[in-house]
Amino acid sequence: MYIDTTVIKIPEIDMFRDSVKVFAPASVSNVGPGFDIMGFALDEPGDEIFAERNNTGQLRIKEIFGDDGKLPFDINQNTATVAIKSMLEKYKIDTGIDITIDKKMGIGSGLGSSAASAVGGVFAVNELLDLKLSKDELLLHALNGEAVASGAIHADNVAPSLFGGFLLVRDYNPIDIIKIPTPKDLYCTIIYPDIVVKTSEARKIIDKFFPVKDVVTQAGNSGALIAGLYSGDYDLISRSLVDKIAEHKRASFLPFYDDIRDKGKELNAVNCNISGSGPSLFSFSRSLDEADTLASELKKIVLDYGFDVKTYVSQINQEGPRILD
Amino acid sequence: MYIDTTVIKIPEIDMFRDSVKVFAPASVSNVGPGFDIMGFALDEPGDEIFAERNNTGQLRIKEIFGDDGKLPFDINQNTATVAIKSMLEKYKIDTGIDITIDKKMGIGSGLGSSAASAVGGVFAVNELLDLKLSKDELLLHALNGEAVASGAIHADNVAPSLFGGFLLVRDYNPIDIIKIPTPKDLYCTIIYPDIVVKTSEARKIIDKFFPVKDVVTQAGNSGALIAGLYSGDYDLISRSLVDKIAEHKRASFLPFYDDIRDKGKELNAVNCNISGSGPSLFSFSRSLDEADTLASELKKIVLDYGFDVKTYVSQINQEGPRILD
Repeated sequence: MYIDTTVIKIPEIDMFRDSVKVFAPASVSNVGPGFDIMGFALDEPGDEIFAERNNTGQLRIKEIFGDDGKLPFDINQNTATVAIKSMLEKYKIDTGIDITIDKKMGIGSGLGSSAASAVGGVFAVNELLDLKLSKDELLLHALNGEAVASGAIHADNVAPSLFGGFLLVRDYNPIDIIKIPTPKDLYCTIIYPDIVVKTSEARKIIDKFFPVKDVVTQAGNSGALIAGLYSGDYDLISRSLVDKIAEHKRASFLPFYDDIRDKGKELNAVNCNISGSGPSLFSFSRSLDEADTLASELKKIVLDYGFDVKTYVSQINQEGPRILD
Repeated sequence: MYIDTTVIKIPEIDMFRDSVKVFAPASVSNVGPGFDIMGFALDEPGDEIFAERNNTGQLRIKEIFGDDGKLPFDINQNTATVAIKSMLEKYKIDTGIDITIDKKMGIGSGLGSSAASAVGGVFAVNELLDLKLSKDELLLHALNGEAVASGAIHADNVAPSLFGGFLLVRDYNPIDIIKIPTPKDLYCTIIYPDIVVKTSEARKIIDKFFPVKDVVTQAGNSGALIAGLYSGDYDLISRSLVDKIAEHKRASFLPFYDDIRDKGKELNAVNCNISGSGPSLFSFSRSLDEADTLASELKKIVLDYGFDVKTYVSQINQEGPRILD
């Protein structure tokens, strides 16, 4: 995490590629009792970031697709370019770069959209310029990028999107991220209903203080969820997916929440909960078949409530971002 | 945990033993972030409980050793006999039993003294009468016994003393206890200073409400401690042994607390913290040698502060109570 400030010598431009296209995965954060501390990466959806050299010496956003015009072209406002700029400034690199962002996921979905863009940005430029920075080194810059969207440094989406896997962020000072092994047959169903939940609003409704029994319960479920993941005990994972901080408040934005959870139980799902600050929900399953069935059954419920809905079925992405071409 | 209320048929008295002596281990609860939810059993100290049949049909306390006259002979007040009575009444058993309690550990030490007596009581009588009750079945009665001392049902000493090992008590309704594997070379040093800390007083000084960041930190350290135990990562265990609920308040009863922690760090200990509500402290080490060195060095510090002190070095007791003869 601590980065040597030595200027990296950039090799001759001809030796390396002129452009690169990468995929950076969406992620689920606030995993039940893991409010602000746990997250995991998905195989889909995710963002595609295209980075190419230009001769202007400037960092620019060339095009943005799939955002319905919502994302800023100002490189000091867009999470991808803020992250890249943080990295370029750190290493005193002045190569001109054009960025094209293809949002393959909803903005404000609760699936770590801004984190995926920030991660995709630094991962792409690291590859484009052959900087050979480690993921530990990329992390800080991706966090700086994501902070422009969320207003604070949060690693629970950025870190899973960058490192892959199921991560526990124990502390920030210094940052302490622990990769938790997960059962290999664990599948995740994502339900993304067409409801706008503003992150700022979702934060505002959370209580500021909690009684000691809630602290104890949250710590108990957090430890138990980690134990369930290590031991592959699906029933324990299911029992532990309870959040005392935000779940009961944020569920009020999601009129179908109880019905989704009831249906999940009926279908033997490993429990459902809210992804990030919503509106997306995630549910674990013991197999791809179960996860697929869950996706179609839960989709029906949301449609019945009159909301459009997208679903995704994914294992836990252990890789993080990858080069597409 | 749920117990069949069928009356157990007691076999003819002559077929089985007339007396039994058992050992029930002390335990460390409130393990750093595991306030009210984690505990582990020790090889020493512990209580010895001697149970023998009598012909009066009564449950009686015959003798109590090692308690300096502090423990009650009233069977409705003593944790051992309250636990036994709960069991005898549940199964409608009217065999007369005399109990002798040999306290081999301090009362009010923060090492689960009342839990050990309750566990020893039910374990001894289960053996004496050959009831063949499982530990799951014994648990409820031991909890009832311990409750007479602590004023509430707490499993974080009773469960480790009964089942052995490092346990996480996720929930009470229904009770959900998870055994956590521990590194095989993990040793525990206990420092028991001669200071009286009343559990009721130690509870009273704890804040009633906590800011959301403390809830998040406690949950993060709880999950991280469990991850450290599963993976055998001593450094992670060490970093996670922080409590946001009681540690900073209760440390005020222990003037040598900071010095103990500093010395622990100097000696490469896997961190120190308060056992139960104190005054005992526990520290993890990576080997028996380290744990022994720690015991003698930490003892000096407490003596220098003018308090008498006992020390114990123990692995995590994986067995729970055992029959002595």
